[in-house]
Amino acid sequence: MAKDKKLVESVTPMNEDFAKWYTDVVKNAELIEYSGIKGCMILRPNGYAIWENIQKELDRRFKETGVENVYMPMFIPESLLQREKDHVEGFAPEVAWVTQGGNEELAERLCVRPTSETLFCDLYSNIIQSYRDLPKVYNQWCSVVRWEKTTRPFLRTAEFLWQEGHTAHATAEEAEERTIQMLNVYADFCNEVLAIPLLKGRKTDKEKFAGAHATYTIEAMMHDGKALQSGTSHNFGDGFAKAFGIQYLDKNNKLSYVHQTSWGLSTRIIGAIIMVHGDDFGLVLPPRIAPTQVMVIPIAMQKEGVLDKAEELYNSLCEAGLRAKLDSSDKSPGWKFSEQEIQGIPARIEIGPKDIETGQCVIVRRDNREKTIVPIGEAAARLKEILEKEQEDMYNRAYEHLHSSLYEAKDYESFKDIIANKPGFVKAMWCGDEACELKIKEDTTATSRCIPFEQEKISDTCICCNKPAKAMVYWGKAY
Amino acid sequence: MAKDKKLVESVTPMNEDFAKWYTDVVKNAELIEYSGIKGCMILRPNGYAIWENIQKELDRRFKETGVENVYMPMFIPESLLQREKDHVEGFAPEVAWVTQGGNEELAERLCVRPTSETLFCDLYSNIIQSYRDLPKVYNQWCSVVRWEKTTRPFLRTAEFLWQEGHTAHATAEEAEERTIQMLNVYADFCNEVLAIPLLKGRKTDKEKFAGAHATYTIEAMMHDGKALQSGTSHNFGDGFAKAFGIQYLDKNNKLSYVHQTSWGLSTRIIGAIIMVHGDDFGLVLPPRIAPTQVMVIPIAMQKEGVLDKAEELYNSLCEAGLRAKLDSSDKSPGWKFSEQEIQGIPARIEIGPKDIETGQCVIVRRDNREKTIVPIGEAAARLKEILEKEQEDMYNRAYEHLHSSLYEAKDYESFKDIIANKPGFVKAMWCGDEACELKIKEDTTATSRCIPFEQEKISDTCICCNKPAKAMVYWGKAY
Repeated sequence: MAKDKKLVESVTPMNEDFAKWYTDVVKNAELIEYSGIKGCMILRPNGYAIWENIQKELDRRFKETGVENVYMPMFIPESLLQREKDHVEGFAPEVAWVTQGGNEELAERLCVRPTSETLFCDLYSNIIQSYRDLPKVYNQWCSVVRWEKTTRPFLRTAEFLWQEGHTAHATAEEAEERTIQMLNVYADFCNEVLAIPLLKGRKTDKEKFAGAHATYTIEAMMHDGKALQSGTSHNFGDGFAKAFGIQYLDKNNKLSYVHQTSWGLSTRIIGAIIMVHGDDFGLVLPPRIAPTQVMVIPIAMQKEGVLDKAEELYNSLCEAGLRAKLDSSDKSPGWKFSEQEIQGIPARIEIGPKDIETGQCVIVRRDNREKTIVPIGEAAARLKEILEKEQEDMYNRAYEHLHSSLYEAKDYESFKDIIANKPGFVKAMWCGDEACELKIKEDTTATSRCIPFEQEKISDTCICCNKPAKAMVYWGKAY
Repeated sequence: MAKDKKLVESVTPMNEDFAKWYTDVVKNAELIEYSGIKGCMILRPNGYAIWENIQKELDRRFKETGVENVYMPMFIPESLLQREKDHVEGFAPEVAWVTQGGNEELAERLCVRPTSETLFCDLYSNIIQSYRDLPKVYNQWCSVVRWEKTTRPFLRTAEFLWQEGHTAHATAEEAEERTIQMLNVYADFCNEVLAIPLLKGRKTDKEKFAGAHATYTIEAMMHDGKALQSGTSHNFGDGFAKAFGIQYLDKNNKLSYVHQTSWGLSTRIIGAIIMVHGDDFGLVLPPRIAPTQVMVIPIAMQKEGVLDKAEELYNSLCEAGLRAKLDSSDKSPGWKFSEQEIQGIPARIEIGPKDIETGQCVIVRRDNREKTIVPIGEAAARLKEILEKEQEDMYNRAYEHLHSSLYEAKDYESFKDIIANKPGFVKAMWCGDEACELKIKEDTTATSRCIPFEQEKISDTCICCNKPAKAMVYWGKAY
């Protein structure tokens, strides 16, 4: 079958060229299509459905902690963007500017939001008056635009989808608590639903968000040993509140500034799913996030009774609450297998005339291609067990990969050697000086990924300058 | 209580000034907040939660008909927008143009999407090759921008949220079927969930969508007798397919153009909910769409045991699947009643020391303020019945209002008299000539709302020119 061959060959093997493997997968799994607009991609049904499931699950977890959703305008007047000094310096160089509306030149340029801190601050300054109005725990799901020069699907695009939470609190303690709480919501979600293990910690000042007091991050390790920053949570202290005049009257009638946080997770995380779990046959989706969990594929479909039995099986899977599809198109079974595999659907069920005779069908796991023959009547129940096991195995494999790729370095020579030759992260001590971060980046291209919450003492001195060390840092190359 | 007085007085009575009543309600029910960007509004939690419920319910109905969601870029290159002649003429005067990205002038201007036909057509021309690729039934939830000069919250804003469905089919019949199917999805949703009765029909050529072959509409009647176009469904025929070269190979290897549809419903519908159901106390939300269905309000909260009992009651409502909230803030009960009423929450439950003694609580309906005393243990079950009845009564009142405000006119003098003096729509015959539509609009400010599917013969000749009539039209003033 010439057609089958073509589909399998359409994915470059991972070890041959990881970057090409990645773009082959996103394109051939039909997650995205390139658009005519530079750096903007189209999320096709297979890609958008993953994002919908991420939204549904995260939104539920957000709301359990008291989050309320809102929608802010997509435009920010230039003067508003400039209100907080660090913030505008961080974002102004990479925004898209609207200068004409209808046939008229605008009196003031509007930027398409790269992030909405300034809009939320402006709103909070209008609607927060007293302690009764606090806390405000708002979030929005939207798209943002950052005018990037070089782009890659999901990882770096001119427009991308995300959620951005913005909160205002009466005290510094409450803001810090919320910052950590949301980081943990992200981490739990990634562990439990996406089967992605993480390292959690604080960003160095160099790597923190423009205008933040502290930025916390979850870092995942891709198959090639590189890091992907997968979600961040920022404590703004009262910096933005002072720039925007967000004050409230407390119970003693005293005027105080609020303390703020923000936190975001984007479609970038789909890039992490691909690069943590994918293989040479294409995408591999964790069952809990997969839009379609099982594809029913009839064999010798033209034979009497096969399609009826396949439909019956498909219906029983749907009724059991599984996200199932039936491929009854006029393509060959081999072609259908390849499509199900390249799209990362966690399982397929093959059912043909011989199976029907014996009252059985074949379940094939996507991740390890393990086959299980089960009675047709038990297919739904057995499949649920198999998918749970697949989810668990996927997490364990990723955990094993992450933890077997963490190295320690006590001196700069071995640090450089590991970064150059071993895919993964290096644990090494740091003095706290940005100059050392810059030198390390120049020498090795590695950056500080985070100062982990769980500190170890690898040595006494900074890996770079040998001055007394202040903290252990995870270093690595990153997307 | 001075505070209570202020809240009630904050809404202008409907009969005094309907437009002011409307803006008072949207602002004081905390649905929106004006932003610093002209014509753009902020959807606050109370407003956005209504949209979330609309999305959830409509999206479910869409998917039952085979719709798949996607996400397209928010920018459209000028050259792509210009590909279909009627379409660009309809939209170009009211778009926002991005001319700078980062620090550079763009080689080609990009408009912020006013609607995404051109992007979907471009995608379809790339991904549709054979009959196997059809139909494509895609939809996206997003925001769009139309640079309007005069704006009103929900009804007409520079940026608004909506969904836009775009489909491609093998035959003209299938496209027409899908166009009507989606119009009916909208109509059923409005009837069953929003308690809004409608008139369904086709738009005249003058009122149809730029580039469409035929536009179908659902028209609702507001409290002041004006029409609000609440959703539209367009059959494009193969016009866009020809402009964008969207062809497929059929089973006989013959190349044919696809036939397309599009259909949209926006946050405008929230304006309809407000103006169909609202009253002088504020918003009235149909129970099926209300984000909060019942507010539990403790009376004499400082008395021992009251708050505990209120919480117990609140928990029992949540467990029964009701969307409940408990207001345990330090505001007065009267203030809390006013807030619940102005926000349109369909019911409140009052519970105080005397109620607890007798084991009872008081359910108060929002729409007619009817009180029912029920045993605390039966509150959830009784409330469900009461909310169902409230939903039904709200639909019936709106139906009654719509049908008692439909008039017939056989001659132009009585037509003009009705339009000038009676709030509502007029059924009158029309010759099919756009000149008559223009004259009627000039003479009366009324426009053709639709050519209803259910035709009647009011007279033989056009209400305006007296030439032979082709169809009965609903005429009315509109938002």
